[in-house]
Amino acid sequence: MHFVIIGGDAAGMSAASRSKRNQPELEVTVLEKTMDVSYSACGMPYNIADPARPIDDLVVREAQVFRDKQGIDLRTGHTVDTLDTKAKTVSGKTAEGEDFKVPYDKLLIATGATPIIPGLPGFDLPGVMGLKSLEDGRRIKHFIGERNVKRIAIIGMGYIALEMCEALRARELKVDMVKPRPVFLPWLNEKLAHMVREEVRAKGVGVHPGHEIKEIRKENGLLKVLCDDLELDCELVLVAIGVKPVSNIADRAGLQLGPGKAISVDRTLCTSDENIYAAGDCADAVHIVTGEKVWIPLALRANRAGWAVADNVTGRHVELEGVAGTAVFKVFDLQVAATGLSVLQAERAGFEPVEVMIKSRTRAHAHPGSTMMGVTMVGDKKSGRLLGVQMVGHEGVAHRVNAPAVALQARMTVDAFAQSDLAYAPPFGPVWDPMLTAANQLLKKMV
Amino acid sequence: MHFVIIGGDAAGMSAASRSKRNQPELEVTVLEKTMDVSYSACGMPYNIADPARPIDDLVVREAQVFRDKQGIDLRTGHTVDTLDTKAKTVSGKTAEGEDFKVPYDKLLIATGATPIIPGLPGFDLPGVMGLKSLEDGRRIKHFIGERNVKRIAIIGMGYIALEMCEALRARELKVDMVKPRPVFLPWLNEKLAHMVREEVRAKGVGVHPGHEIKEIRKENGLLKVLCDDLELDCELVLVAIGVKPVSNIADRAGLQLGPGKAISVDRTLCTSDENIYAAGDCADAVHIVTGEKVWIPLALRANRAGWAVADNVTGRHVELEGVAGTAVFKVFDLQVAATGLSVLQAERAGFEPVEVMIKSRTRAHAHPGSTMMGVTMVGDKKSGRLLGVQMVGHEGVAHRVNAPAVALQARMTVDAFAQSDLAYAPPFGPVWDPMLTAANQLLKKMV
Repeated sequence: MHFVIIGGDAAGMSAASRSKRNQPELEVTVLEKTMDVSYSACGMPYNIADPARPIDDLVVREAQVFRDKQGIDLRTGHTVDTLDTKAKTVSGKTAEGEDFKVPYDKLLIATGATPIIPGLPGFDLPGVMGLKSLEDGRRIKHFIGERNVKRIAIIGMGYIALEMCEALRARELKVDMVKPRPVFLPWLNEKLAHMVREEVRAKGVGVHPGHEIKEIRKENGLLKVLCDDLELDCELVLVAIGVKPVSNIADRAGLQLGPGKAISVDRTLCTSDENIYAAGDCADAVHIVTGEKVWIPLALRANRAGWAVADNVTGRHVELEGVAGTAVFKVFDLQVAATGLSVLQAERAGFEPVEVMIKSRTRAHAHPGSTMMGVTMVGDKKSGRLLGVQMVGHEGVAHRVNAPAVALQARMTVDAFAQSDLAYAPPFGPVWDPMLTAANQLLKKMV
Repeated sequence: MHFVIIGGDAAGMSAASRSKRNQPELEVTVLEKTMDVSYSACGMPYNIADPARPIDDLVVREAQVFRDKQGIDLRTGHTVDTLDTKAKTVSGKTAEGEDFKVPYDKLLIATGATPIIPGLPGFDLPGVMGLKSLEDGRRIKHFIGERNVKRIAIIGMGYIALEMCEALRARELKVDMVKPRPVFLPWLNEKLAHMVREEVRAKGVGVHPGHEIKEIRKENGLLKVLCDDLELDCELVLVAIGVKPVSNIADRAGLQLGPGKAISVDRTLCTSDENIYAAGDCADAVHIVTGEKVWIPLALRANRAGWAVADNVTGRHVELEGVAGTAVFKVFDLQVAATGLSVLQAERAGFEPVEVMIKSRTRAHAHPGSTMMGVTMVGDKKSGRLLGVQMVGHEGVAHRVNAPAVALQARMTVDAFAQSDLAYAPPFGPVWDPMLTAANQLLKKMV
């Protein structure tokens, strides 16, 4: 049997390796557009922060290892443009311009996502860049070093924009962030978002929400981002307004698409064609809280889905539960984490959400070094279920969010979650963990 | 109605405050043996570490505040020695030697636990001390400062012993630990225990397990701990071989006792006498994993049980779920955490336990500052249930243990837990969180 995989990043290479481990006689071909496979995309901001570190530090395993050690037919520089579901072939062009066509028995589409670049004047100028692939990271890092960049404008204020902020400030660059919407982090509780905004400002970043971007111009060797009531001069523009799933090949082949035009898959990661799977940032998923289809591109899901496809292709039946959208990022000295639904998302999904916001010490009473963290928790008044948690703080946020994430997985009520026996020691939190304090406060409001 | 509480620490004062909040007209009397109420007992090692900090920093709320602001009849220096369940009175002596007798309608026994002091020669010498009450902490800290103590011997190697080790080394004292059993931390997986032992040794502490203690002698103004094949000279001996519940009053009154001679309570915290509750370190609990009664004295349970008693006394019906024994402590640069059952405990409880041990990076591939953490996870082959998790590492251990703690609360299988959507960002862990890696490995062994 021939298992063909389009895309050699997290989902694709996870599937390739695991299917070969499961069934060594399986013929596995990976067609990867770029020259890079198996790298830590999420690590790029941290790598860019340090001029001394080569970007290839982020490569987890070299392409040659997959070929030699695992017997995977890994072809880099292979761009697939056509999927013929009747003939069961994929075809396209190599980096050298040669046509290729590969037949498959089972196909995995793991084409990932790509930065959204607005169709406005000047977004195609040299020095205007998005960050998603290792090639993007390499280009940005090289550009900063080569051109001795001093000023950067970031369009967008999502978590990649914020991580890049920190990275660029670490290199002592002047950084301005701009975006059209007036709300800073719209998915985050307003008070928590304010904490993040203050942190970013305090670190010397210009934060300019609410400015419609008109165009980017090149003037006197500089880039100028022209907005309503604002002009930003810089040498490099990072476009980080979001990503979209790369689903065009699937779409043209007539596969069903889901939310955000991601490729629609069932719990086995199978698309509307029984011989074709999709996994990673190009595929949708079921949300664990709502039971509805969502598109939330995150690294863990990509890896997990890659494994599940490998298992299903090699004859083990695996169904994946949903996603909770659990995410964490660091921005300067703050940690920001969320799992499940915000109060707004919960309303839209038809719940009767109740939200509390608490502030809690990060260490016990009188323990030195304690700081304050903010937590919001959302429950459903009708069912009593826990729906989501968000938090911001200087410490103890990143791993703390996993406790409510597990509670979402188990469909716990707030009441049941509030009875959890969580750990306590003075250096790590108060006796009543902030998760429990929030749950206790929420219960009072849910009555 | 008159609600009388014996003991003014975590459980007792939690019950007193909450019952008054629930029902302001309730008459609440607290009888506390010492002069201290409402302090952070777990914070004592960290306070003792710093000679500049007064021990009273640990007091969360002054006694007078409970009296004036909350209207609680708080009587310090009141030692109860007799409980008459027929007459519904408690009686005893004040610090001034006066007899008192107090009638109750509802009674809470929250007498806590007390250090076990072996009945061997010399354990009553001045300079031989246990650490449980704030008075104990005050005495130890004062003794160290006053006598200019340079050398300390700690008998016992539990978490209080280890936390005190760190505290005393911070003050540059010479510290030796000794105990009769040859196994260093018998409740912890052997390899994880080894990591802790190496850390303690590396910080210059003498670690001497497997030495039976014979007696303590005073010679030339020094204390000498005499053991099999070992003599330790010091100015202060800390006895930290464990604690026992203070249940003698309850026992004499004929109340039923449970494991470890703790006072037996049902899920409402009621004892075998319908008018008497027990909460905190003197009471037993149901273990969430085994469903059996256990005695695991921990601070969160004490606070939670105090609240539950207050609710039940004031006419709200509250039942507590069990405990998982979730605990964390810090020893020098290591964090040690556990929840649920060890493989040995699981065997004893009649499960068919399977254990895995994994090592994991604490940060993503190529992220600077990453260290290794060790994780063990135990599942039940028969039912598929998750039974327990232990971990040791330099970072990311303390709050990570709360995710499996919630899973135990929800009685999840390892398979369900392994599907949890946990957070990922390069500064905080690998894409596959160590909890998920451990669960995935465990699943393979459980087939």
